[in-house]
Amino acid sequence: MPQQKTRNPLGWGYLEDALGDEERRAIAGVLGKVFRLDDEHFRPCPPVGGVPLRRARVEPPREMAGLVSGDHADRVLHCIGRSFRDLASLRSGQELAAPDVVATPGNAEELARVLEWANRDGLGVIPFGGGSSVVGGVTPDPAMDRCNGCVSLDLQGLSRVLEISERDRVAHVEAGILGPALDAALRPRGLTMRYYPQSYFHSSVGGWIATRGAGHYSTLHAKIEDQVEALGVLLPDGRRLHTRALPASSVGPDPNRLWCGSEGALGVITDARLRVQARPQHKATRGVVFPGFESALEAGREIVQAGLWPAQLRILDPDEHRMSNALSGQAVSGALMILGFESSAFRVDEPLRLGLDLCRAHGGQPREPRGDSGKGEGVDNWRRTFFRQPYVRDFLLDYAVIADTFETAVPWSRLPDFYRQVREITRAAVNRVCGAGTVTCRTTHAYPDGVCLYFSFNGQGRHGALADQWWEIKTAASDAVMAGGGTISHHHAMGRDHKRWARQELPPAFRGAIRAAKRELDPGAIMNPGLWFEG
Amino acid sequence: MPQQKTRNPLGWGYLEDALGDEERRAIAGVLGKVFRLDDEHFRPCPPVGGVPLRRARVEPPREMAGLVSGDHADRVLHCIGRSFRDLASLRSGQELAAPDVVATPGNAEELARVLEWANRDGLGVIPFGGGSSVVGGVTPDPAMDRCNGCVSLDLQGLSRVLEISERDRVAHVEAGILGPALDAALRPRGLTMRYYPQSYFHSSVGGWIATRGAGHYSTLHAKIEDQVEALGVLLPDGRRLHTRALPASSVGPDPNRLWCGSEGALGVITDARLRVQARPQHKATRGVVFPGFESALEAGREIVQAGLWPAQLRILDPDEHRMSNALSGQAVSGALMILGFESSAFRVDEPLRLGLDLCRAHGGQPREPRGDSGKGEGVDNWRRTFFRQPYVRDFLLDYAVIADTFETAVPWSRLPDFYRQVREITRAAVNRVCGAGTVTCRTTHAYPDGVCLYFSFNGQGRHGALADQWWEIKTAASDAVMAGGGTISHHHAMGRDHKRWARQELPPAFRGAIRAAKRELDPGAIMNPGLWFEG
Repeated sequence: MPQQKTRNPLGWGYLEDALGDEERRAIAGVLGKVFRLDDEHFRPCPPVGGVPLRRARVEPPREMAGLVSGDHADRVLHCIGRSFRDLASLRSGQELAAPDVVATPGNAEELARVLEWANRDGLGVIPFGGGSSVVGGVTPDPAMDRCNGCVSLDLQGLSRVLEISERDRVAHVEAGILGPALDAALRPRGLTMRYYPQSYFHSSVGGWIATRGAGHYSTLHAKIEDQVEALGVLLPDGRRLHTRALPASSVGPDPNRLWCGSEGALGVITDARLRVQARPQHKATRGVVFPGFESALEAGREIVQAGLWPAQLRILDPDEHRMSNALSGQAVSGALMILGFESSAFRVDEPLRLGLDLCRAHGGQPREPRGDSGKGEGVDNWRRTFFRQPYVRDFLLDYAVIADTFETAVPWSRLPDFYRQVREITRAAVNRVCGAGTVTCRTTHAYPDGVCLYFSFNGQGRHGALADQWWEIKTAASDAVMAGGGTISHHHAMGRDHKRWARQELPPAFRGAIRAAKRELDPGAIMNPGLWFEG
Repeated sequence: MPQQKTRNPLGWGYLEDALGDEERRAIAGVLGKVFRLDDEHFRPCPPVGGVPLRRARVEPPREMAGLVSGDHADRVLHCIGRSFRDLASLRSGQELAAPDVVATPGNAEELARVLEWANRDGLGVIPFGGGSSVVGGVTPDPAMDRCNGCVSLDLQGLSRVLEISERDRVAHVEAGILGPALDAALRPRGLTMRYYPQSYFHSSVGGWIATRGAGHYSTLHAKIEDQVEALGVLLPDGRRLHTRALPASSVGPDPNRLWCGSEGALGVITDARLRVQARPQHKATRGVVFPGFESALEAGREIVQAGLWPAQLRILDPDEHRMSNALSGQAVSGALMILGFESSAFRVDEPLRLGLDLCRAHGGQPREPRGDSGKGEGVDNWRRTFFRQPYVRDFLLDYAVIADTFETAVPWSRLPDFYRQVREITRAAVNRVCGAGTVTCRTTHAYPDGVCLYFSFNGQGRHGALADQWWEIKTAASDAVMAGGGTISHHHAMGRDHKRWARQELPPAFRGAIRAAKRELDPGAIMNPGLWFEG
């Protein structure tokens, strides 16, 4: 098992992985020219004890001793996810809505006891996997007031590996298991999940499924819903269900798909049979520089439509490309495509060659293989920063810098207009709110019929006004995404932050159908109240 | 547009495609040794006018003139699908449950008028695409008696191509369009659906989606639900919904998946945006003979798990292999794998070579490239018979031969036991019912975590007892499939024939959730009554 680290209760990831002094200095050296990263503007997050929470309405009952805690520190850790808004709220000085108690069942039987208690007493329940939601997925909201209290249901105690089948390439695991523990169990069998969201180190299988997440292997095996062979669910009234383990079926709507994206509202996902892969034996990755984003998109479209199925195909727009190299001091220009192939069974030089040929036809210049990995300039920089970005965001937040991301997906035919419009509208909002700032974009996932665009924005905010400032930008960007025909989220899910737009995206009759299904599955309406299901 | 043919009202497919004299003689020459294919046992289907139907409870209303027909011939054509049970019932001499009227709207506006009328008058509605259901999907059953009458809603008038996007590789079509018309529209654009169910010539896009069908390109792009980018639905009370055209999303459960597999019970699928492909420019197919079925299955598993994604990977067990060559007079032995690759963009010699290497490692012997197509012995025979088999079934039925198929899917780890048990139990039932007979098997679709097994059985039945005899075999086979952990259908759907087993397969709480969704979408409960949704 990987070594246990300490969850940062007030920010992204683990305390052990926080930015070190050297890293901070390097970032300050570059970004200090743009943002006010000085002592005068430094206002760190209060310590856990200094975060004011609404008074609890419920005490842990005696019969739940050891299973349910009302400790302030536990409540702080579970009162938010890890969105910008969440972390800004910690610094607001305002009393936060918080779960009254935190339950930490260690096995399925304890989970059932907790849920039975909550259901009997009419307590709202928020399933909490790794707590890495960036869209308000685990945050109690006013809808919770309809319940008699709020339980944060931390599922990390349910993390057993139940079965690994090498023949089926399937891992049956409990839903609370985190990415690294899953891979540690698979590795000795020659298998891997190959699923790396940015939250990989502290997000759970149940969270991946409940949010319809995506890993950063970006074609074919990207979305988690395609990797769910079967799952188990515990309903609040004690009913359990397991879907049948099947490679495919035509009997009714697929039951797995009802819980993929259910965000905790349709019962607790207790376990899942996930399709896994043999560990890659052959890899080839190259960076390709294009004169602009549009030509790179054209090449990317042709590569996926050709059925080459790269393990990675991501494209950084010129601004994103420049920023991802800022720390290295390298001057770069143009858009960067990172194109990678891998296989457990055959050499991948040939698909890479075919992919690079398609790139060249659109003006792409493959970088010479050099650098740490032989992948060509820029690729290693990008990989290094991928898992560090949220830590940088937290660091900047201490100086009131608004730095956030949002992602969407659209059919290819909406490009490049969609990209330009969303970028310009978001940039205008950043300028209006912050005076100046940047908006950059990369593609993270590509499909034969479209692509995921992942935008990053930042600007200098003001302490005390951060949440409102952020919301103004977020609203402008989200309205633009909707107007342009995108989804409000390709892999971050809906949570509470996206409710308004999820209602635009999903037809009213479908919302009604899911509400009706919820009444059937959760008659007490205790499961994660406040999502779009409700109106 | 392809030339219009005449639908056979009493059997599979088109009258123009029925077996010719020569074909009948050839089949009789081989099968006459096994079955009683003589004049004494010939009892053909009565003509349309001789099929007795239950008296209609509803007359076509005057305001629906031209849209709704109560003609006997129209009612006969729409009172059944094309299952063995359906065609046996035509020969039973018994009065058949039938729709009272048949509606043939020619456009979306007329469809809305028909549905509004049915909803207002409480008439049950059975959406009818191509009518090729082999599981009782379009057959009125006793549940229909709760309605005030029954309308068969023939959707073939809604067959327009609304948009073809070459950039997105998407075709937006009305749901009544049949396979050949869709491909005819795609061909000039260099595109193809590459979706060939056995019913290809007379099944509709809406039917494919409502039943979660699969084409015979057997890996990666096989199941229709993976090819639905978006769809439109008309609800009985006039509400319309369109899902957003997106390559992927993480906002709630996927709305498209609620209607994939809905079998007409959750509203009428009116149109769909389907993911299509570039026409293949490179193809390579070979037959590989294995000593037995098990070794071929092992090779097949390794090929899909290697990520080679063959366009075709099907394996005929030794009996199926022998029977598919019976007409040719060739003596063959062992199991036959048909392994084919195709691509619009690159040569496929190399994936074929890698696949054949994996076959050889399991004792597979690739056939020398020869025959019509250079694919090797046996492959062309198989292809020729694929679309002809149901016509042969109908021919044999005139002589009281019971010939039917059923299909399922299981994880690889259940093989070979599952195969043996289902085959033996089915064979025992055939022997019990018919005295003797055959049960053969092929795999039709392969996935990294499992495979679709497609069984065929036949035996000499008795005129007048065919439906009961068939049901005894079907029940034994279906019980065996369920007991072994399979799905009751991989691509034929549930219909009415599979209800009992669908209820075993799907968890009760999920069935309750879909029932609740149905109440919301179809408050009058008029849409295709009698499916598993109901209890």
